[in-house]
Amino acid sequence: MANETTRILGLDPGLRRTGWGVIESEGSRLRWIAHGVVAPDEKAPFSERLLHLLEQVGEVCAAYACDEAAIEEVFVNVNPSSTLKLGHARAAVMLAPARAGLRVAEYAPTLIKKAVVGAGQADKSQIAFMVKRLLPTSGEVKADAADALAVAITHAHHRRAHGLRGAA
Amino acid sequence: MANETTRILGLDPGLRRTGWGVIESEGSRLRWIAHGVVAPDEKAPFSERLLHLLEQVGEVCAAYACDEAAIEEVFVNVNPSSTLKLGHARAAVMLAPARAGLRVAEYAPTLIKKAVVGAGQADKSQIAFMVKRLLPTSGEVKADAADALAVAITHAHHRRAHGLRGAA
Repeated sequence: MANETTRILGLDPGLRRTGWGVIESEGSRLRWIAHGVVAPDEKAPFSERLLHLLEQVGEVCAAYACDEAAIEEVFVNVNPSSTLKLGHARAAVMLAPARAGLRVAEYAPTLIKKAVVGAGQADKSQIAFMVKRLLPTSGEVKADAADALAVAITHAHHRRAHGLRGAA
Repeated sequence: MANETTRILGLDPGLRRTGWGVIESEGSRLRWIAHGVVAPDEKAPFSERLLHLLEQVGEVCAAYACDEAAIEEVFVNVNPSSTLKLGHARAAVMLAPARAGLRVAEYAPTLIKKAVVGAGQADKSQIAFMVKRLLPTSGEVKADAADALAVAITHAHHRRAHGLRGAA
């Protein structure tokens, strides 16, 4: 089976800051393409903040011609009001690749940590450290974008392990 | 000041069932236009269910040339996992009018009940009863759509009381 190149968009959703990262996966090789953070104006009306997330992530998805997308599964927060806000932000972020016809894979946090750091328990700095190791051309990556790249890496491993091919 | 006609889209979000209702407001007069329910396939992947909500509500918004939109403010549920799901559904639903350039007003449940039933505490059947009274041409309206029409009615009252004019 010939190796094909797949562009993967990883997403780390948040109403204030949403991290994104794009990598290319070819067989067992990973290549960093781009990463960044979307931060809607906190003073804008709520629906506009969500729209900003949808549109900006949509632009990233189109600009880098992503084939597949992945996002972290979220678990309920201790603060129910934060849980509700995160739910809104996560939906806006997921809808961007979904609108482009991409499937959005979801991975549990422990699975992501295992895939990137090798253990189910790891802090943000360990993840950022390993992301930089696995994607040496990425340069300096801040936490939100590092988490997004970690999700993309997890998806690359997972799809290879499960023989997934092509986008939805 | 001449009375202008405004089409208002009211929304009652839910991942399984999202109610929508469109009314026309002209001065103190209200007129029923349409209502319905969007129910995404429960077996579809999560991102597709959200996309279905976004697209179907978007079609309603365009089909009835809505000028303004309104949605209920949600409060955190006793079940955090339900809160998280509702947050996702609510974002998808809000994003439909937001994408069309409409502002999405948010009203507390007690305010909606006061506007429609006259008291901050009211059950669903009372709301459905009053919605039918206020919009006699609506015919039979089931709970989700009745709640959506109630939100639209609340917005009509509120915008008139506050001298709001025109869409965003």
